[in-house]
Amino acid sequence: MNIDPPLDDVRAAVARALAEDLGPVGDVTAALVPVDARASADVVARESGVLAGTACATEVFAQLDQRVMIEWSVDDGADLADGTKVGRVSGPLRSILTGERSALNFLCHLSGVATATHRFVVAVSPARVRILDTRKTLPGLRALEKAAVRAGGGTNHRGSLSDFVLLKDNHLVGVGIADAVQRAHAMWPGRTVEVECDRLEQVREAIEAGAAMVLLDNMSPDEVRECVAFVRDSGTPDVFLEVSGGVTLENVASYAGTGADAVSTSVITQSAPALDIGFDIEVGEG
Amino acid sequence: MNIDPPLDDVRAAVARALAEDLGPVGDVTAALVPVDARASADVVARESGVLAGTACATEVFAQLDQRVMIEWSVDDGADLADGTKVGRVSGPLRSILTGERSALNFLCHLSGVATATHRFVVAVSPARVRILDTRKTLPGLRALEKAAVRAGGGTNHRGSLSDFVLLKDNHLVGVGIADAVQRAHAMWPGRTVEVECDRLEQVREAIEAGAAMVLLDNMSPDEVRECVAFVRDSGTPDVFLEVSGGVTLENVASYAGTGADAVSTSVITQSAPALDIGFDIEVGEG
Amino acid sequence: MNIDPPLDDVRAAVARALAEDLGPVGDVTAALVPVDARASADVVARESGVLAGTACATEVFAQLDQRVMIEWSVDDGADLADGTKVGRVSGPLRSILTGERSALNFLCHLSGVATATHRFVVAVSPARVRILDTRKTLPGLRALEKAAVRAGGGTNHRGSLSDFVLLKDNHLVGVGIADAVQRAHAMWPGRTVEVECDRLEQVREAIEAGAAMVLLDNMSPDEVRECVAFVRDSGTPDVFLEVSGGVTLENVASYAGTGADAVSTSVITQSAPALDIGFDIEVGEG
Amino acid sequence: MNIDPPLDDVRAAVARALAEDLGPVGDVTAALVPVDARASADVVARESGVLAGTACATEVFAQLDQRVMIEWSVDDGADLADGTKVGRVSGPLRSILTGERSALNFLCHLSGVATATHRFVVAVSPARVRILDTRKTLPGLRALEKAAVRAGGGTNHRGSLSDFVLLKDNHLVGVGIADAVQRAHAMWPGRTVEVECDRLEQVREAIEAGAAMVLLDNMSPDEVRECVAFVRDSGTPDVFLEVSGGVTLENVASYAGTGADAVSTSVITQSAPALDIGFDIEVGEG
Amino acid sequence: MNIDPPLDDVRAAVARALAEDLGPVGDVTAALVPVDARASADVVARESGVLAGTACATEVFAQLDQRVMIEWSVDDGADLADGTKVGRVSGPLRSILTGERSALNFLCHLSGVATATHRFVVAVSPARVRILDTRKTLPGLRALEKAAVRAGGGTNHRGSLSDFVLLKDNHLVGVGIADAVQRAHAMWPGRTVEVECDRLEQVREAIEAGAAMVLLDNMSPDEVRECVAFVRDSGTPDVFLEVSGGVTLENVASYAGTGADAVSTSVITQSAPALDIGFDIEVGEG
Amino acid sequence: MNIDPPLDDVRAAVARALAEDLGPVGDVTAALVPVDARASADVVARESGVLAGTACATEVFAQLDQRVMIEWSVDDGADLADGTKVGRVSGPLRSILTGERSALNFLCHLSGVATATHRFVVAVSPARVRILDTRKTLPGLRALEKAAVRAGGGTNHRGSLSDFVLLKDNHLVGVGIADAVQRAHAMWPGRTVEVECDRLEQVREAIEAGAAMVLLDNMSPDEVRECVAFVRDSGTPDVFLEVSGGVTLENVASYAGTGADAVSTSVITQSAPALDIGFDIEVGEG
Repeated sequence: MNIDPPLDDVRAAVARALAEDLGPVGDVTAALVPVDARASADVVARESGVLAGTACATEVFAQLDQRVMIEWSVDDGADLADGTKVGRVSGPLRSILTGERSALNFLCHLSGVATATHRFVVAVSPARVRILDTRKTLPGLRALEKAAVRAGGGTNHRGSLSDFVLLKDNHLVGVGIADAVQRAHAMWPGRTVEVECDRLEQVREAIEAGAAMVLLDNMSPDEVRECVAFVRDSGTPDVFLEVSGGVTLENVASYAGTGADAVSTSVITQSAPALDIGFDIEVGEG
Repeated sequence: MNIDPPLDDVRAAVARALAEDLGPVGDVTAALVPVDARASADVVARESGVLAGTACATEVFAQLDQRVMIEWSVDDGADLADGTKVGRVSGPLRSILTGERSALNFLCHLSGVATATHRFVVAVSPARVRILDTRKTLPGLRALEKAAVRAGGGTNHRGSLSDFVLLKDNHLVGVGIADAVQRAHAMWPGRTVEVECDRLEQVREAIEAGAAMVLLDNMSPDEVRECVAFVRDSGTPDVFLEVSGGVTLENVASYAGTGADAVSTSVITQSAPALDIGFDIEVGEG
Repeated sequence: MNIDPPLDDVRAAVARALAEDLGPVGDVTAALVPVDARASADVVARESGVLAGTACATEVFAQLDQRVMIEWSVDDGADLADGTKVGRVSGPLRSILTGERSALNFLCHLSGVATATHRFVVAVSPARVRILDTRKTLPGLRALEKAAVRAGGGTNHRGSLSDFVLLKDNHLVGVGIADAVQRAHAMWPGRTVEVECDRLEQVREAIEAGAAMVLLDNMSPDEVRECVAFVRDSGTPDVFLEVSGGVTLENVASYAGTGADAVSTSVITQSAPALDIGFDIEVGEG
Repeated sequence: MNIDPPLDDVRAAVARALAEDLGPVGDVTAALVPVDARASADVVARESGVLAGTACATEVFAQLDQRVMIEWSVDDGADLADGTKVGRVSGPLRSILTGERSALNFLCHLSGVATATHRFVVAVSPARVRILDTRKTLPGLRALEKAAVRAGGGTNHRGSLSDFVLLKDNHLVGVGIADAVQRAHAMWPGRTVEVECDRLEQVREAIEAGAAMVLLDNMSPDEVRECVAFVRDSGTPDVFLEVSGGVTLENVASYAGTGADAVSTSVITQSAPALDIGFDIEVGEG
Repeated sequence: MNIDPPLDDVRAAVARALAEDLGPVGDVTAALVPVDARASADVVARESGVLAGTACATEVFAQLDQRVMIEWSVDDGADLADGTKVGRVSGPLRSILTGERSALNFLCHLSGVATATHRFVVAVSPARVRILDTRKTLPGLRALEKAAVRAGGGTNHRGSLSDFVLLKDNHLVGVGIADAVQRAHAMWPGRTVEVECDRLEQVREAIEAGAAMVLLDNMSPDEVRECVAFVRDSGTPDVFLEVSGGVTLENVASYAGTGADAVSTSVITQSAPALDIGFDIEVGEG
Repeated sequence: MNIDPPLDDVRAAVARALAEDLGPVGDVTAALVPVDARASADVVARESGVLAGTACATEVFAQLDQRVMIEWSVDDGADLADGTKVGRVSGPLRSILTGERSALNFLCHLSGVATATHRFVVAVSPARVRILDTRKTLPGLRALEKAAVRAGGGTNHRGSLSDFVLLKDNHLVGVGIADAVQRAHAMWPGRTVEVECDRLEQVREAIEAGAAMVLLDNMSPDEVRECVAFVRDSGTPDVFLEVSGGVTLENVASYAGTGADAVSTSVITQSAPALDIGFDIEVGEG
């Protein structure tokens, strides 16, 4: 069900990573290693989580030294235990040492995103509520993080400001929700229109105006339930209801039973700790 | 004592952030706002921490719409309480809404890095041990994260593989530490040579070979103390001793009293949660 | 109601245009002009149409020589007659001559797109059917062309493959429309799902599955009418109906009265002739 | 006799095209297709014309997914009838669907340029007058369009402002044609010097000054004939005579018999309608 | 008579220079200087030569810190004595120190190119023979070096492979010079055609075929004289004659009296020693 | 002992070189050669020196036409005599001709740098004094030039302003050397601190403050000897002593016997004449 990150984003991000890590002289330490030394390395998870970022790690060595081979035992989205062997790298020792950190920086961060996402997904199950990401991503890494969210079982919200209309309070200058939704449909027919609502009255106004999605902002589970009940009993019961604001891994379960369609959180992208993955290098076996 | 991030990194990172957020059509929601509406926004910390990333936020609006003015009340490195006003943005409402998320993505992530760093700095005080960053940074953001580490009171380790020689186990192919250090000095005179050591015997070998820095890897506080004692009593007591491996905010204080010069940690860059900073927008006051 | 093209696209496209036009030696002809000669130029439409591309023309001179001033008499979207003065450029003659062609290449192409769009808009009025663009745009110019479509009174369909789900025949591998729509909603909740249909039966299947948009492909006006009648009488009368395939300026009016919401055409982007706009330069008046 | 477009332009233009089409999430529709589905597609002309752009289409799949194979039955410059099979693509269905539009956007536009060029070439035959392009090209696509002009049997005029000296009215500030040509030769010896002339007297002045090319601007066929007669009887009968201004496919033949060496037109680059080329995809045959 | 380097080349080259010099941490030494210290610096020639590169030096500070002001006392092309003050920089001391080397790297190299060119120009005077550059330039710096050649009084040969046809021995596969020139004119009418010749017979063939330029390769002054005499007495005495191959500052004068139009040399671009220019910084006067 | 240039620098520099040489139309001369003509070329040194730049030349053809094969007989760092065959290129004649100049521009410049470096290395032998490069490199080529310096037997000084602290006179604003060194160590622990000194007294101050390197600026050999004696007799005899300022190939030997560790010079990068290397092309043997 998964899709890979766009390849052009992978290529560009890896090129930037190598440029910032190689510096003007290259790897001064690897230069001390015999040029013909070869090695293999197992790529190993050192804690449990969900894998993401393999396309980036592959690209690191493709750009650095095409003699380095990398084979993956598992794919993005795989559940990892502490000790799971993720893949195997083999080739010239110098290049493995030089590329190791760049490859791991992608793997550890993106697996961290996938893992954090997966924890939210697990926390709300068996309810069928989805975990949505946001535009609160790290600059330059959005496409890769959104792919990692998918790897973790999450769902992508807007990719950019071009995708959806998402009306917030500050967009309503001198007009009410109903007018704003109408103008959004008029200007951008075909595009999803979502309205951020603080209270039931706004929800009513939004769905009557024809919004396809409603963001229930900073509401308690009970307030969410009330909004859900209202919408499901309305003439447009399929409006997509997204809970947002102050959701944490600790409290997300309390929203799972509210009947909302999704919970969105920035924690999974901008606050996901790296997953510990490392290379176990064996010199002389490449 | 601080220095700003290199301006070329700021410019390039901001250009990427805007390109990935604007998309092919631009901000379809802001397009619904009257073109002549103006606004002001206070940039406000919503939790306590340390500020970083102001140069990036300034650059976001410089690239997006030069009519948006941004004034900072405090500088990178400032201590923030929940509610501290960091700065003020004013100008066309459309552009403020369009640039808000990109500006905040930088501010929140980089302030998160500065804050995490500062927590480590506080945890080890009043000892004079330094908190060092690593090369475990998020791809494409290294220069900005290293500046944020400085803003948080931390110290920068290597910027790239070109800077120092850092000999690890896998670099020693068929040679001992002494030989490797000697070859490092021969090939790269003038560059700092650091050796990663697991035990006292290696430390001895490294300092006898003339290493200027020793990385004490995965040692307990007592093992660190033993190494420190050895080095301080040796003929080269000024060798810089860095503790690394498995250091957390919880255990870092136990290394503070060991006499080591610094503790390095990847937590402050690749696992720092975003600091919550937001815009309080007032329409009509721009 | 209009929005400008994303500024980062403007900047990048102009930089490429100047790089390809200046060449390794620069403008060898302008170099023959006295360095202190000044001039003014009226930017004048030489045929009737709709204006677009002013932001690009402004950017050309901003990147080439900031002493060149450019003032617009009218904005993107303005109706132009043969002879309408669009704006005025003044400054050093050399730079005006050097930048003239790059500025006009943007103005003429993008105004051509706006004009072609406007002709379709006029052809279907007074019906309220919209003119939609497609992804059939010229490589590297999509964001600018989509802005020009808006300037001409048209509406933007998908900006990229990330925006909507648009299911065509070849996406249905071993599944029917109903299953495919369901899977699309499951994988990409919140994203608009559109289905391309060749005949009424498919339309029925698509709207029963919950598609928000239906593309009526290569149908005659009568076939379209039949589909419209069916949908408007169904339980989801608001499904957005887009007519596509073989639409020309000559036949588009025949679809205007069918009750479809929109007609999409690639003619307005990939086959729009340039609008003739020129500089009337007066030396010595800059 | 043909040459391919410069490969670096092909690579850069394709990378931009893919970046603007993939967006932050990639192809959300192709993601619904089974990952192991394979397909083949004939690339087929749906109207008659001249082929160009195959190098770009090849590069699209090379950058997107190297498992997609593309074989061309004919080369750039080939005459196409409605139904001519141009080539065949085979590989993973997902990647074929994702790359189809980008590949076709290049093929259709550049074949459109080649076709428009070829129509002018045919219109002037059997006279040996050449069809020249101009600098009125679409921003960022000049090198590709100039290659397409060659594919259509046309001839390339200046590639950039660095190539030739082309003196127009506005370059003559306080000097006459003779002086200007002399200064051009003095400053840029070896570079072709062309002079734009409105009337015979200027032509005389230009060729006496030693211009190698004369642009006969906005002249009637009879005026052109008069200038040609004058030049062919002069001491420098080989001066290259280019007719320009207001040339259309309808009137170009009237210049064919004038004896001028070439006719230049912007229509073939900035106003060429796309040639209709499509993929006929067969799933399961890749 | 001079023209500046194309601004887009200046911008791109400066951005690259700063990126490679600032590194991931920025200027660690300037960071030790008080943030409010100001300074002025005279830019002073430390040996005699010809100035070039001022646009690049200006751009360095424009990109680095817009508070740094730079005023030039003289322009590109000016004769410098040891001690000539070229310009004055003032502003924050930190930024002056950080940008100094990048600015000087441009000034010293490009003034070196201008100076080397000027020495050749002087060596051949009072003969009116021109000094031509070649495509033997340093990668990435061609446009800047060609501008520096002009600043030194030299003349630009081809800017790129697109500009002229220059037929060498290896281009003549199975055809003679006459046929090759004819085909060149047929394929690229309007473009200058030059033929490289080793002996008089080839020169005769080239000019009879209508070549506009002849490159006299590796000939002695007497051989050149013989070719010149032949051409000047022929029916096309104005063919441009370029001497090339093994020309040095020592022997160039011997070609000055031969009557050739120009001498080309790669020495002035790829072997020009840097001109010594430095900053005399006075702290506290910015 | 050598290391290659960072591959990302090679790729980027080659892409720029090809972009600036191909121009908008490509190689108009090679286009006249039969498309199926093949050739081989020996890459031959035409004077003695040291080889560098092979990775760039390989990359030129990899980017231009992957059918061109290039095999090297010797590696970077090899001693070349006049006539030494360096390698062999074979493939389509057109592509060999088109790429020849770009490949040679890298080979000739970088071998020039390696050769100049080697001459300094030879001039100081058999003393064990090292030849150091500087940051006085040609813009955009630093990483490649630093690799060429290594190929010539030289040693790399700082790669960028991020690497070392190098305190010069102008950095000492209101503080003495001792204070400055202390602050440098405090701000950038682990980074090498070097101090530029004009006289013995400063040297004393620098080494007492703990500087690891001292730059002896513009001193005579006798002054250098005096400083060396002082340092070797001090408590920190291993401080690295670098002689700099006014060093030439003529006078460098006089510093060889002074006991200094290294001599640095900008001559080897910014004033190195190109080494003459060429292609001997044989058509029909590719």
